[in-house]
Amino acid sequence: MLAAPIITLTTDFGLKDPFAGLMKGVMLGINPNAKVIDITHNIQRHNIFEASRVIAMSYKYFPTTTIHVVVVDPGVGSMRRPLLIVTEDHYFIGPDNGIFTPILEDLKSTFLKVYNVTASHYFLPIIGSTFHGRDIFAPVAAWLSKGVDSHKMGEQIDDYMTIPSPKPMHTNNNTITGEIISIDIFGNGASNIAKDDLAKLASIESKENFRVLYNNEHLHIANFYAENKNNSLAAIINSFGYIELFVFQGSASEKYNIKIGDKVIVSLA
Amino acid sequence: MLAAPIITLTTDFGLKDPFAGLMKGVMLGINPNAKVIDITHNIQRHNIFEASRVIAMSYKYFPTTTIHVVVVDPGVGSMRRPLLIVTEDHYFIGPDNGIFTPILEDLKSTFLKVYNVTASHYFLPIIGSTFHGRDIFAPVAAWLSKGVDSHKMGEQIDDYMTIPSPKPMHTNNNTITGEIISIDIFGNGASNIAKDDLAKLASIESKENFRVLYNNEHLHIANFYAENKNNSLAAIINSFGYIELFVFQGSASEKYNIKIGDKVIVSLA
Amino acid sequence: MLAAPIITLTTDFGLKDPFAGLMKGVMLGINPNAKVIDITHNIQRHNIFEASRVIAMSYKYFPTTTIHVVVVDPGVGSMRRPLLIVTEDHYFIGPDNGIFTPILEDLKSTFLKVYNVTASHYFLPIIGSTFHGRDIFAPVAAWLSKGVDSHKMGEQIDDYMTIPSPKPMHTNNNTITGEIISIDIFGNGASNIAKDDLAKLASIESKENFRVLYNNEHLHIANFYAENKNNSLAAIINSFGYIELFVFQGSASEKYNIKIGDKVIVSLA
Repeated sequence: MLAAPIITLTTDFGLKDPFAGLMKGVMLGINPNAKVIDITHNIQRHNIFEASRVIAMSYKYFPTTTIHVVVVDPGVGSMRRPLLIVTEDHYFIGPDNGIFTPILEDLKSTFLKVYNVTASHYFLPIIGSTFHGRDIFAPVAAWLSKGVDSHKMGEQIDDYMTIPSPKPMHTNNNTITGEIISIDIFGNGASNIAKDDLAKLASIESKENFRVLYNNEHLHIANFYAENKNNSLAAIINSFGYIELFVFQGSASEKYNIKIGDKVIVSLA
Repeated sequence: MLAAPIITLTTDFGLKDPFAGLMKGVMLGINPNAKVIDITHNIQRHNIFEASRVIAMSYKYFPTTTIHVVVVDPGVGSMRRPLLIVTEDHYFIGPDNGIFTPILEDLKSTFLKVYNVTASHYFLPIIGSTFHGRDIFAPVAAWLSKGVDSHKMGEQIDDYMTIPSPKPMHTNNNTITGEIISIDIFGNGASNIAKDDLAKLASIESKENFRVLYNNEHLHIANFYAENKNNSLAAIINSFGYIELFVFQGSASEKYNIKIGDKVIVSLA
Repeated sequence: MLAAPIITLTTDFGLKDPFAGLMKGVMLGINPNAKVIDITHNIQRHNIFEASRVIAMSYKYFPTTTIHVVVVDPGVGSMRRPLLIVTEDHYFIGPDNGIFTPILEDLKSTFLKVYNVTASHYFLPIIGSTFHGRDIFAPVAAWLSKGVDSHKMGEQIDDYMTIPSPKPMHTNNNTITGEIISIDIFGNGASNIAKDDLAKLASIESKENFRVLYNNEHLHIANFYAENKNNSLAAIINSFGYIELFVFQGSASEKYNIKIGDKVIVSLA
């Protein structure tokens, strides 16, 4: 038996309204064998940056040929284009509003094609002006999962939109200045400073040689959360490879008022 | 390979307790090939009207022969009957408390059978008095998805319950008065005035000829949300075909205190 | 066609972050035929007792050979062990922190094996220190669902952790004193006093002979919720077989300030 094709959903639709369910209904009507997996429907309303970060940290944990549908779409119904992005291993479908910026940056060097999706015979017969997730993105994903060739979905483009995303800066030879870019449900604040950035800072690999500075305080760098039993703020390299601030069994965000955009500085000890 | 049968769930169980998960466990135990899709579990507690509206706007986006289980059931364990509704294209299972009112109204003219589900050998062996979703509705849906004939589930009835639902009124030749019947997670307020009602108002089809009045203010009728960039209240025909009030990138409900039951008036310009 | 193997998820990850979705991605990458069913992702953060109660009340509604993954894991990344529990009918995977206490107690007399999972070739290639749900528990569950033998996952142990859980006490021949152990989304408070405890109290089976006392008030014992239309506090034997306090169409928890740990007393009339 061939593996069922996988389609993931990342939206700001929430879980009260039936919107995510309707997308699944539409997709299963076209391809009954598709497996639809929710990544999240709780992206902050209209927060394109948050959605771009979530799909970028998520897609690589899905099997190759997975189709990722991302819908945070304040411009729905306007002239903004529907995109299909084809990389070596994955497909991405969503509005052309910058939502795929880190995907496009990360995968630029690899096989990459971006299509403006115009093949309206793959859309629902009636297209409303407020819910392209159901009327365009879902059916296009389902037809793609049935084997329709990407290039049949529209014409290739290279003038797709991107959004600015904060990058950590080497403020001098010994220092990287980054910032908090997300806060998870546990109140942990993840920065944009990656393990790889630390490696670039110096050839020294041991994290004992680094210092993490937040709000003028030097933080202990823990090997695991429970190591920091005194409930003070500490840092850890999280499971996505980024410096993260946490409080063991507490909310770093609440206790230390950590907010997105706050500076985090890493320096050689 | 035959397509896996689809069963949808619409409940007020929320997503904290394991209730929805247990219904899926019971269904997969009976029919391991069923695909169970959540429409929503966040219907307001015991809000039969809200559930009736959500399933009515949702079912038609699922493939034919889908089985829709809807459980908002304050009368659970009492003498209220379990229903199975068979229409030309879909099945509906849930309590006889009016939850299927719009389905029964919409589909009255088509092939329609309503059963009082009494075939207890298709229920779980032990029936509690507080969770018929798990003990009755889930197993009946699963057996149905395995091909058990509808008429084996109980006797046909026609005295099923309905609930009153607000209908828009032609207050004179030029005017329809409706009301807000739902507010979505984005704060958009949908009315019960459909595109078809506008068409009945006059032979004129262009929406430029209509005026939407809310709270004594005339609203711009937008073609898409982003068209109304000044953040004032505006109207749009939403993707379910109804007049909806919105604020671009804001919450109309919060900003203009829109509530369910508020009057919306459409008139010829 | 063989039934697809079922894997359930019970976590405190919430539904905003993509954590549950990533576990599904990892599992489907290993076993594309697995069906992953959410029991809940809304366990209170780090509440091992709550998770232990939820999985204990849930697992038996899933088909035999279901694999239950439970991740509430404050000790992630430390030396706490990953467990695989094999019972006659089900598998359980999660951290060794007491989360499986009632499972281990309930099923002690049956065929039961507990493994410390050490076979790291079944883990993801790179193991972070903060997300073993994705890096260890998900892939182990997926490999197990593909038919890998349990005993290949690690060595059998019997010094697994358990947590204390409140048991109802026979305070005299005529009386059982228990306590509220959970409050569901409807505000119903379930106690730890089971129908079986009542049966032990006396040979009398009719519930008319019992009295339920909460906060010095005798409660009516209802046959179904709607029976108690006056909105006072009442008791019922819920669908999991436990004495539960409720208010019809209201929140007992809010109206009567019912909290976890509150005493509930059942006595012969």
